[in-house]
Amino acid sequence: MDIELIDAHCHGIVAADPDRSQFEAMLGEGRRGSFGSALGLALRRWCAPLLDLPAHAEPERYLARRAELGWREVSARLLRAAGVSRWLVDTGYGFAPAFVDLCGGPVGEIVRIESVAERVVAEYGLTATVFDEIERALRESARSAVGLKSVAAYRCGLDFPGHGIPPSTSALSGTRLTDPRMLSWLVGLAARISAESGLPLQFHTGFGDTDLRLHRADPLLLTDFLRATEDSGATVVLLHCWPYHRNAAYLANVFSHVYLDLGLTIPHVGQRASAILAEALELAPFDRLCYSSDGCGLAELHYLGARLWRRGLGRVLDEWIADDAITTADADALIAAVAAGNAARLYPAATPRPGAGPNSPPLPLR
Amino acid sequence: MDIELIDAHCHGIVAADPDRSQFEAMLGEGRRGSFGSALGLALRRWCAPLLDLPAHAEPERYLARRAELGWREVSARLLRAAGVSRWLVDTGYGFAPAFVDLCGGPVGEIVRIESVAERVVAEYGLTATVFDEIERALRESARSAVGLKSVAAYRCGLDFPGHGIPPSTSALSGTRLTDPRMLSWLVGLAARISAESGLPLQFHTGFGDTDLRLHRADPLLLTDFLRATEDSGATVVLLHCWPYHRNAAYLANVFSHVYLDLGLTIPHVGQRASAILAEALELAPFDRLCYSSDGCGLAELHYLGARLWRRGLGRVLDEWIADDAITTADADALIAAVAAGNAARLYPAATPRPGAGPNSPPLPLR
Amino acid sequence: MDIELIDAHCHGIVAADPDRSQFEAMLGEGRRGSFGSALGLALRRWCAPLLDLPAHAEPERYLARRAELGWREVSARLLRAAGVSRWLVDTGYGFAPAFVDLCGGPVGEIVRIESVAERVVAEYGLTATVFDEIERALRESARSAVGLKSVAAYRCGLDFPGHGIPPSTSALSGTRLTDPRMLSWLVGLAARISAESGLPLQFHTGFGDTDLRLHRADPLLLTDFLRATEDSGATVVLLHCWPYHRNAAYLANVFSHVYLDLGLTIPHVGQRASAILAEALELAPFDRLCYSSDGCGLAELHYLGARLWRRGLGRVLDEWIADDAITTADADALIAAVAAGNAARLYPAATPRPGAGPNSPPLPLR
Repeated sequence: MDIELIDAHCHGIVAADPDRSQFEAMLGEGRRGSFGSALGLALRRWCAPLLDLPAHAEPERYLARRAELGWREVSARLLRAAGVSRWLVDTGYGFAPAFVDLCGGPVGEIVRIESVAERVVAEYGLTATVFDEIERALRESARSAVGLKSVAAYRCGLDFPGHGIPPSTSALSGTRLTDPRMLSWLVGLAARISAESGLPLQFHTGFGDTDLRLHRADPLLLTDFLRATEDSGATVVLLHCWPYHRNAAYLANVFSHVYLDLGLTIPHVGQRASAILAEALELAPFDRLCYSSDGCGLAELHYLGARLWRRGLGRVLDEWIADDAITTADADALIAAVAAGNAARLYPAATPRPGAGPNSPPLPLR
Repeated sequence: MDIELIDAHCHGIVAADPDRSQFEAMLGEGRRGSFGSALGLALRRWCAPLLDLPAHAEPERYLARRAELGWREVSARLLRAAGVSRWLVDTGYGFAPAFVDLCGGPVGEIVRIESVAERVVAEYGLTATVFDEIERALRESARSAVGLKSVAAYRCGLDFPGHGIPPSTSALSGTRLTDPRMLSWLVGLAARISAESGLPLQFHTGFGDTDLRLHRADPLLLTDFLRATEDSGATVVLLHCWPYHRNAAYLANVFSHVYLDLGLTIPHVGQRASAILAEALELAPFDRLCYSSDGCGLAELHYLGARLWRRGLGRVLDEWIADDAITTADADALIAAVAAGNAARLYPAATPRPGAGPNSPPLPLR
Repeated sequence: MDIELIDAHCHGIVAADPDRSQFEAMLGEGRRGSFGSALGLALRRWCAPLLDLPAHAEPERYLARRAELGWREVSARLLRAAGVSRWLVDTGYGFAPAFVDLCGGPVGEIVRIESVAERVVAEYGLTATVFDEIERALRESARSAVGLKSVAAYRCGLDFPGHGIPPSTSALSGTRLTDPRMLSWLVGLAARISAESGLPLQFHTGFGDTDLRLHRADPLLLTDFLRATEDSGATVVLLHCWPYHRNAAYLANVFSHVYLDLGLTIPHVGQRASAILAEALELAPFDRLCYSSDGCGLAELHYLGARLWRRGLGRVLDEWIADDAITTADADALIAAVAAGNAARLYPAATPRPGAGPNSPPLPLR
């Protein structure tokens, strides 16, 4: 637990005590998760002791003890135990001020570009100047942020058309931006801001909830976009990636401005974290892999991301050392780089206390 | 061998003694398989002792002994040794009554929806009422079945269009239904019958013979269909899945009505069964993974499915226990669930003796 | 090191001493590679001792010693240490005569069909007879070659349309053939030459540089082409394949005229070679997997391909033997087949000294 992590992509926590049904709803990417899963096993194994329970405590016992301690105490214990020295939080979805109080480190803001654009469209309507207003608002938001993020994978898939001129305002109907031309324009704008400001542009790729068509979230669908931006000064981070993490590692290998992390994947696959990390390390340059938890709603997810990442990466490198494939010194350097060094180089210093993001009510219990 | 399995998807056996060429033809998904493969190694390792030969017996010796004992005795030994307490058989392809006599357990019938529809089309022709007749026949078949199955992956790929109204009869030309609109309608009908009757609807996905375009059998292509049916009461089982088994596990994770098995995959990958099972368990909820062999033609396949599944899953869980990632009690519960518990909950009790399915001559030697 | 290999697909070496920047440029598939990668670790571990350095020597020290010895001595040491008894070289990209002098074995020529066609188009222009001239030139080149190769994956992706009649000359504009109809015609021609001459037709599939859209290099996209050629007498080899190596193994399993190798993959994934080989062996028939390094520019790549392949395959089979999944005799036979036996059967004997290919200036330093 000596190595400090930078959690380069996560969300806030729910400031309330969930019952079992609510807890399971937040455990899954579908309508509800389950304790009977790799994630559930990892949660009982690793989180229970932090709540003064034996490892592998039964779900009912875990939840009773959680309620007894209360969400505030539980979250504080889990977030502190993650050993994270800096948190970069997507404030476009489910950010609660309580997180800042409990997490024990500086918090930086990742601005979700679709949320900003939707707020502007809701405010200005389909006027001739709405694209200018979106650009102005995004540049304004970027000023206090440590990164930008696109969820185009959820809106139209990553196979959006080549970007360029603003689409007509017909691409803006509805409260949710889903038109591929609009997303293409918005992502192109974000890439320009990334190039000018140095802020990385994160993309959700791979595994997510049922709102996603997973095969249209394959990061390889960004190939043309990456080719177009390689010389622009923009920096791109591919988040989560599973089951396309090998594809993401390939993109980081061949494009000099591409980074990846495994985010959400690591807590969900539990005991299999080392296997996934080993697959990612086949092609990923060691200075281009970052850590993140994608923790959201339950501080258990923030903690498990950190716990399983440390353990999984340690295990891979122990095997490599035992096999004389790497020296101990090189393994230590690799761990330090992916834990925090790469992210420290990539992201600006976190702002001490971000404002709540646009369109960001605290996460409710579901 | 204490744990009884439910084999939730298999076919019949050939009631004849094959020569080497015929045996190899049935060993493969292409025109012929080979003893020089992961499957061939597993067959020699695990099946030979059941024929009173040493493990790893040479192919010629194995086939000579097989002929000496005769297909009936060999099949009885292999099927009984599988430790299967209930067999669910796709009677739409290669079902022979001998199987029922030899398999040592109750047999339930899985109705292949395309076979039923093709029989009706052949009988009624392109009349105005043919869609009604298909529906009537399918409902009739479902009455004595334990499940429905679609091979749309073979006919038009799993990217068939959103279902709804019956297509025109022009979608019915030929003896084999391949029109995507027709398949979409038929699958939609099957989903409604599943919702009404409680019978699961199985889909061939992933690995199969050369009649398939494998990349169009990715279960992710069913995403829109699964989204449309999640609240309908229908239940969907994704069969085989390799090399898209992680994708299938994701679908089971996020859609509450989706199950998966690894069918065909396990006997074919031989020694690698534990690796595949570990990959599937990354995201698959433990109450949504089932066992099946997809055994077809040769009872060796039914037996190897069971033998390698037991061994592979046991190995994964032994490692998890050794690593304190799961308790012994939880591991036992997991094994019992995927071996039979999940299928027992999912499928109705097997009928004691199914009729041969429509269009289902016994499997011939090839 | 007893087992001799046939390197069934590689390129030449640069006949010059690179500085660090030039060395790293040749280490990667993008604009530059990195010592901080699985490949870099393997290079320092395995190549350094051949340059009289301790294993894991630092990059600067490695490069200094390399410069001290000179590219000729270094290349000779590395190529000889690969234990390769025959080299099959793609002369369409970066072939240098020095390779023949240094490699210590007979060299056969793989003709890149796109290079031949482009040379003819450049010479003849858009005349009515240009397709006949391409055919004549390709048949002429094939006469002294041991194989043909297509890089259609780089030009238009492997989802080119069904082949047949020659396209119009409008498909030939530019110096680089990228029109899918043209590539389809050319690949169809190469398949006919393969059928008539017995020369295998290699396809680049999977992992490559940024000129590629990786998802359009999935070998499954060749399914229709493979179905159309299965009975023609043509033989097809899928090169590299990662991350689609399971897909390639499936194609070799179901199509009797399909072979695969892992080429480029093995040196790049370093310590993970055994994991990739194990995945390929799930479905690949043992008489259809070949060895190649895809070494290009740096003799380190030729050597690492061989070193890591031997080690990786040995490790997989040691585990299988320890687990009683294969006999020692069968494991020896498997190794001999994939090391050289399958390629010896597949490719004609190498010509002792090939001419430099068309459009093939020696590889320059970048």
